[in-house]
Amino acid sequence: MKSLIECVPNISEGRRAEVVAAIRDAALGASRDVLLLDSTSDPDHNRSVFTFLGDGPALVDAMTAMVGAAVDRIDLRTHRGAHPRLGAVDVVPFVPVRGASAADCVRLAKELGARLAERFSLPVFLYEDAATSEERRNLATIRKGEFEGLGEKMADPAWRPDFGPGEPHPTAGATVVGARTFLVAYNINLGTSDKAIADRIAKAIRHIGGGYRYVKAMGVLLEDRKLAQVSINMTNFERTPLHRVFETVRSEAERHGVSIVGSEIVGLVPQGALLAAAEHYLRLEADPGGQVLENKLLDLAFQRNG
Amino acid sequence: MKSLIECVPNISEGRRAEVVAAIRDAALGASRDVLLLDSTSDPDHNRSVFTFLGDGPALVDAMTAMVGAAVDRIDLRTHRGAHPRLGAVDVVPFVPVRGASAADCVRLAKELGARLAERFSLPVFLYEDAATSEERRNLATIRKGEFEGLGEKMADPAWRPDFGPGEPHPTAGATVVGARTFLVAYNINLGTSDKAIADRIAKAIRHIGGGYRYVKAMGVLLEDRKLAQVSINMTNFERTPLHRVFETVRSEAERHGVSIVGSEIVGLVPQGALLAAAEHYLRLEADPGGQVLENKLLDLAFQRNG
Repeated sequence: MKSLIECVPNISEGRRAEVVAAIRDAALGASRDVLLLDSTSDPDHNRSVFTFLGDGPALVDAMTAMVGAAVDRIDLRTHRGAHPRLGAVDVVPFVPVRGASAADCVRLAKELGARLAERFSLPVFLYEDAATSEERRNLATIRKGEFEGLGEKMADPAWRPDFGPGEPHPTAGATVVGARTFLVAYNINLGTSDKAIADRIAKAIRHIGGGYRYVKAMGVLLEDRKLAQVSINMTNFERTPLHRVFETVRSEAERHGVSIVGSEIVGLVPQGALLAAAEHYLRLEADPGGQVLENKLLDLAFQRNG
Repeated sequence: MKSLIECVPNISEGRRAEVVAAIRDAALGASRDVLLLDSTSDPDHNRSVFTFLGDGPALVDAMTAMVGAAVDRIDLRTHRGAHPRLGAVDVVPFVPVRGASAADCVRLAKELGARLAERFSLPVFLYEDAATSEERRNLATIRKGEFEGLGEKMADPAWRPDFGPGEPHPTAGATVVGARTFLVAYNINLGTSDKAIADRIAKAIRHIGGGYRYVKAMGVLLEDRKLAQVSINMTNFERTPLHRVFETVRSEAERHGVSIVGSEIVGLVPQGALLAAAEHYLRLEADPGGQVLENKLLDLAFQRNG
C-alpha cells in the first residue's frame, strides 16, 4: 500500500441489522486490502456510518460493491429517520491520511462517481474538495429538499448531477461523493471555571472571528470538572497545525491570567498531526515520519499483502 | 500481532554474499510473521547485522533457524575480521518497540538461549537486561578474549554459560543472547561554533557527569556547518524522554547565551518517543498512541495475517 486513505460512507439504514451487515460485507468482500475500522448504526437516524481504511483503488472497488448492495436492499420511498438523506448510500467522502493528497482523493471521488452512474444508473453529486462549483461544496446545500424533493430539485438545470441520469434513481435517490480533509477534534482545558474566557479565546482563534483559517471553536463549561474549555475542530491539521493553535490559546489565556491545565484529542488522529508537534517543539531539522519504526513495518506489511 | 519487538542479530560473515543471503533466508523462511527491515554487511569487520521486526514467538522461531544456518556455514577457526566476535552468530538482542516490556524480551532471550543450546550444542551467555549476574550485563566483558580465547575463559567456573555445554562449539564458538532497550541517536545543534560549550552541556546531561540516567553524550564540532553539536545516545527513551533532555540542553545553552538551532534523530525511532514529546508540549491528558489512526491499521493488518 503506497497511500493510506480513509473512506466514511453513510448509508440510509440503521435498523435492520442483517441489511447493514450485508452491505458492509459487500464492501469487505470486494477487496482484501480494505479494512473496517469502525461501524455505527443509529436507529433514530435510521442511518449507519462505516469507517474504512485502504489505498485508493481498493476503496473504489469496495465502495462500488457497497453501493450495489445498498441499492438492492434500501428503498427510500419507505425510509423514515431523523437524519436528512438524499440516497440509499447518502454520502461517501474520501479523506487523505498518509502519503495521499487532497487531489488524489478528488480523483478517487470522480472515479467512483463515474462508476456508480454507469453501473447503477445513479445520479452522483460531487461535494467539498471534489465539488465542480462553489455552491456544491456544502453537503447541506446539495441535500436540501432530501429524497422527497429530489425530483423537483433536479428538474432545475442548475442541479444536473455531475455523473449519471438527470433524474433520481426511483428507490435509491442520488449519492453525494467527495473529498475532504481529516477533522481532528481537539479540546484545550483552562485553569478557570469562567466560561466567558473560553468564549473569548475561541472567538480569537476561529476563522470567522479573524483567527486561523482551518479552525472552528467555541467555549464550553465542563460542569463536573468546573473547567472552561476551548472546544476546537481542526479542519486541516496540515495547514493549521495543533501546536500553533495551542500556543495561541496559551498566549491568549495568559493575558487573562489563566493557564492551560490540559488538552485532549477526541477520537482518532493521523500520526502526522502529532509528529508535527514533536517536530516543532524539538526543532527537528526534518520531518521524522520516514524514521518511525512502525511506519517501516506498515509499509512492509502492506507491500507483502499487495 | 499483539506486540512489536525488534531483533538485531550480528553474524560473523560479511564477505561471502551467498552465505549471508542463505542465513538471512533461513530466518525469513521460518516464519512469515517476521519482517526484515535492514541488512548491512561489512567486509572489513567480516560481519553482518540484520534488523528484524515481529512478535516474540515468530522471532524466536526465525532466530533458531538463522543460528542453525549460520552454524552450518561459518567456521570461526578461519574467520578474520576487524570486529571482535565470540561466535558464528555473535550476539542476538531483543528490543521492545511497542506493546512489549523489557521483561517480555528477557523471557524471549531465555527461551531462545535454551533452544540454541539444545538444538545446536551451543553455549549461550545472557547479557544486558537478561544477564544473570552484574558482570555479564556488559557485552564487551563477555566477549573479551574473543573466539580464540574462549576455551580458556570457559575453563574458569565463573564463565560457565547460562545454557549449553561448558566448552565452546568447535566451529561456532558461543552466542550472546539478551534484551536491551531501543537506542535513539539524537543530536542537538547549537547556534555557536564553540565546541567547548557543547562539551560542557554534554557533561551536564550525561549520566556519568551527574546528568540523566539514560543519557550518553559528547560535544562535536560540525565542520561544514560551523556548529557545535551535543551528540546524544538515549539508552532508554521511556525513562529519560527526548523532550526532557532537549529542555535541559536549552536551559544550559541559554546560560552561555546560545540558542538551539535544530535537532536531528539519526536512524530509526519508535513512534512512542515522538508521541511522548507531543503529549508533553501539548499537555495532553492521555497517551495519544491508542488514538493514532495508523496504529489501528497496524493492529488490524497483523490480526488478519496472524
